[in-house]
Amino acid sequence: MHIGFIGLGNMGAPMAHNLLKAGHQLSVFDLNAAAVDNLVGAGALPVDSPTAIAQGNAELIITMLPAAPHVKSVYLGENGLIASARAGVMLIDCSTIDPHSAREVAKAAAEHGNPMLDAPVSGGTGGAAAGTLTFMVGGSDADFDRAQPILAAMGKNIVHCGAAGNGQVAKVANNMLLGISMIGVAEAMALGVALGMDAKTLAGVINTSSGRCWSSDTYNPFPGVLDNVPASRGYSGGFGSDLMLKDLGLATEAAKQVRQPVILGALAQQLYQSFSAQGHGGLDFSAIINQYRKDT
Amino acid sequence: MHIGFIGLGNMGAPMAHNLLKAGHQLSVFDLNAAAVDNLVGAGALPVDSPTAIAQGNAELIITMLPAAPHVKSVYLGENGLIASARAGVMLIDCSTIDPHSAREVAKAAAEHGNPMLDAPVSGGTGGAAAGTLTFMVGGSDADFDRAQPILAAMGKNIVHCGAAGNGQVAKVANNMLLGISMIGVAEAMALGVALGMDAKTLAGVINTSSGRCWSSDTYNPFPGVLDNVPASRGYSGGFGSDLMLKDLGLATEAAKQVRQPVILGALAQQLYQSFSAQGHGGLDFSAIINQYRKDT
Amino acid sequence: MHIGFIGLGNMGAPMAHNLLKAGHQLSVFDLNAAAVDNLVGAGALPVDSPTAIAQGNAELIITMLPAAPHVKSVYLGENGLIASARAGVMLIDCSTIDPHSAREVAKAAAEHGNPMLDAPVSGGTGGAAAGTLTFMVGGSDADFDRAQPILAAMGKNIVHCGAAGNGQVAKVANNMLLGISMIGVAEAMALGVALGMDAKTLAGVINTSSGRCWSSDTYNPFPGVLDNVPASRGYSGGFGSDLMLKDLGLATEAAKQVRQPVILGALAQQLYQSFSAQGHGGLDFSAIINQYRKDT
Amino acid sequence: MHIGFIGLGNMGAPMAHNLLKAGHQLSVFDLNAAAVDNLVGAGALPVDSPTAIAQGNAELIITMLPAAPHVKSVYLGENGLIASARAGVMLIDCSTIDPHSAREVAKAAAEHGNPMLDAPVSGGTGGAAAGTLTFMVGGSDADFDRAQPILAAMGKNIVHCGAAGNGQVAKVANNMLLGISMIGVAEAMALGVALGMDAKTLAGVINTSSGRCWSSDTYNPFPGVLDNVPASRGYSGGFGSDLMLKDLGLATEAAKQVRQPVILGALAQQLYQSFSAQGHGGLDFSAIINQYRKDT
Repeated sequence: MHIGFIGLGNMGAPMAHNLLKAGHQLSVFDLNAAAVDNLVGAGALPVDSPTAIAQGNAELIITMLPAAPHVKSVYLGENGLIASARAGVMLIDCSTIDPHSAREVAKAAAEHGNPMLDAPVSGGTGGAAAGTLTFMVGGSDADFDRAQPILAAMGKNIVHCGAAGNGQVAKVANNMLLGISMIGVAEAMALGVALGMDAKTLAGVINTSSGRCWSSDTYNPFPGVLDNVPASRGYSGGFGSDLMLKDLGLATEAAKQVRQPVILGALAQQLYQSFSAQGHGGLDFSAIINQYRKDT
Repeated sequence: MHIGFIGLGNMGAPMAHNLLKAGHQLSVFDLNAAAVDNLVGAGALPVDSPTAIAQGNAELIITMLPAAPHVKSVYLGENGLIASARAGVMLIDCSTIDPHSAREVAKAAAEHGNPMLDAPVSGGTGGAAAGTLTFMVGGSDADFDRAQPILAAMGKNIVHCGAAGNGQVAKVANNMLLGISMIGVAEAMALGVALGMDAKTLAGVINTSSGRCWSSDTYNPFPGVLDNVPASRGYSGGFGSDLMLKDLGLATEAAKQVRQPVILGALAQQLYQSFSAQGHGGLDFSAIINQYRKDT
Repeated sequence: MHIGFIGLGNMGAPMAHNLLKAGHQLSVFDLNAAAVDNLVGAGALPVDSPTAIAQGNAELIITMLPAAPHVKSVYLGENGLIASARAGVMLIDCSTIDPHSAREVAKAAAEHGNPMLDAPVSGGTGGAAAGTLTFMVGGSDADFDRAQPILAAMGKNIVHCGAAGNGQVAKVANNMLLGISMIGVAEAMALGVALGMDAKTLAGVINTSSGRCWSSDTYNPFPGVLDNVPASRGYSGGFGSDLMLKDLGLATEAAKQVRQPVILGALAQQLYQSFSAQGHGGLDFSAIINQYRKDT
Repeated sequence: MHIGFIGLGNMGAPMAHNLLKAGHQLSVFDLNAAAVDNLVGAGALPVDSPTAIAQGNAELIITMLPAAPHVKSVYLGENGLIASARAGVMLIDCSTIDPHSAREVAKAAAEHGNPMLDAPVSGGTGGAAAGTLTFMVGGSDADFDRAQPILAAMGKNIVHCGAAGNGQVAKVANNMLLGISMIGVAEAMALGVALGMDAKTLAGVINTSSGRCWSSDTYNPFPGVLDNVPASRGYSGGFGSDLMLKDLGLATEAAKQVRQPVILGALAQQLYQSFSAQGHGGLDFSAIINQYRKDT
């Protein structure tokens, strides 16, 4: 299939590579020329602008952008994708943005005759490279079925979350819970160790008991408990604290729009905001445990 | 073995029954005569007081009491177990109390020549009846090895958590994390549904993603997501909100003693305190989601 | 002076009346015809649109609008005030919006040759009617001096807070503190009474001690402590909980934009969000104490 | 009058000096010999033990001790004041402890025929030296009237808060609100400055508006806003963060005993616990603003 791809950053570039590997024809755009060159070297066609991609022959256009303002600009701008694309061309936005904006864009696309899906991902740059991302997809059944094989070239779990915007809802809900859980594990581990327990022993108890969670059994923030996690390599790599802060900001903002209390969620957002303000936003998000350990 | 058992409440009674079933001889005491009669009917010997149990022939004495003041009174009182027991008799306290008090009692026991273990449990009344409790045990290696077969008659997982008091440390750390996770799941589920997602679909995404935890995949608080959990039977049964409140109080108190911040833990304690103050302390602790759902 | 006035709601209408009383000539616009008629009855000239006001003879235009999207639309829209107004006409926005948006609008005004002030108010509808509002004003010294006499016709304290946007900064900072203080007073009063103290006696101690604050000595939330406050008339009138919620939302949003932690502020926002979600958003903001009193 | 005085620390010593200056005869006890010598140099009689003071001729005994365990030991111990004092001797405890313990001691005193008051103070070491303390007094009207002139020799405001324990209730409620207000002011000032406002200007707005409180207008935590406050001398002197942490711990503990939510209070307790864990417990409690300022 001929696919347009806009946004070749840390996530977008490996995703685009996987589409090429799967045999698709790719027209690509990014403001960063080096990012474009890299894809062109692998067989993609460079295109001058999103508008040009929309006006080309792509049957489907994928975007992977940093935040809602970029998405709105690329889709809803004067020469944006929706104004420029032929009717029927499918639009898939893989950016992580707030559900309200996602629904606003999807509505505009529908009015213009373009099927659209929101399809944010989890799995990080590692998952993007390995093609093992999870896609959380919002849109109609028919559109989901049509897009499924394309997304499967870039990911392992392609989950249909319901109507337009629900991909974003699933992502903000899951990641808010992730942020809460990680701080919860940090507090529980630091408390247990401060009270005299061995960290590995404590993690062992938790992981076979009712405190068990992904943040404790797969990504434990206490150094030395697990190998091959950021906690055991100085909190480098992984999922940055500033990215968690962004997602918690989306969750609290979405909650505000529907007057839904998210009390621990808002506190988690503040604790990451404090961590970031201290200059630690570049560390993996499990490094939040350093706020709780006296010897760090 | 001849075992003394003090405290035949909702948890203690089924635990004592399992010891009888395993063939042990039991001397029992409780302030509630009916509770004693029930065990006597199953073959236990009634004894008049904790002191009398201590002065009898039991080689090992198990206590299951509501809170630290009861434990201190029974163990450290003028005619308490420690003052009265023969040297060498092993003492096992299965009550859930703060680690500081547990260590105070264990120290007094050691000075009097009595090996002692703190061995709080998880698994609820169901686990107590089925003999599938988890025991989190603090005390020496030798004492743990000696007690292990006895505890195994009442539970499935018998975990050695380190020196005296560490059984309590493991329990308060795990249960604090459990309280945080449960509220986190409640907020994430309520947020997702308020934003338009189907609850089961959302739980499905979370449970295969990084928000996964025991509170979401095994004990989901949203009605209808899982069968056979309190959420699907009006939040009856299960682990009462007031018991969670008690455990969160132990966690924040223990944290205060070592000046260890537990920010989400303290907020979770307050949210359950508020829930209890509204009269809902008797509902299962997953009912906290009702604080977040507009239609409840 | 000939003044244009846009936005004749609960606050704008009495403010406009005070300008008429002070002898100014007024051209007015509101989407609500009845609101316009009311001012016309007092001597104002009705005008068809904001654009028409901008194109008229007004030397100064005042806006009083619900939220940032309305302000952006009226000022920055295609036929908005900035596009339409003669250079030199002063623009004063009295709406309460986030500082970032205020600065964005002020920058556009400056580029178009229009001096602009942000001048949010406090004092409520009572202060608006009595002409005793406080104006917190952001903008240049010269512009402030020029606007001061006009604002003085509507308020008592006209405070220059610094450059453009700082009026909004002062308001969000003050009102965030107000929200925190009110909840703090609610918790302290409810705690003292639950522990056996008389509410008036407790308020007396606090008000002569270090807990003293406007929320305790002027607007105490406990019924019966002060006369003539919402707490003594069923929390009617006053400053609505939903308005406090709006201001706390502006504060947390502004904090997010500069990665500044506001931990109690975010929690206060959540507590008002919860109160509003329960259907109490129309009560005075001191009614939050009902969340803490068992008998209410 | 012949007065016994037990506890000659930073607060007790200057209080005792003021009683001597007022012409009272003083028998004093402290574990620290130098503290006793200091008072003896001013005319007090040294006594060997609290028991000896109770068995002497003092008509009234005042205690000023660090915490509840000391108070319980001195009053309720085997040779404690209550066991040893002649019936009718008045007992006044000026320590800051939890209301529950204060009531327990007062009940024991009443049963032994000793009128008793709880009379915790505010005003710090400066107020103790200057004789300008505030006394918050719990006990009967008659006892209050009898003690009032004695307390007036050490303080300026002698406030009757109701029955036994209510002095402590008033103090924990006020100081919890103080801790919340101080953090609220810290957040509001730091937010305003981060958004571009001048600190003094912002304080000026707040102090004439609804955010006004003792922590903003009398004890502002932002350096340079007020002279002669800890913020303007590196946060030395004043009311230590660890003392605030102690009082917040009393408040949350008292709240727990009556299942009263104190959500902001508990969060304030955690924030001071975190501050203390970082090693800043010796700084004045207004230094908590350093947790919010990027340049500190």
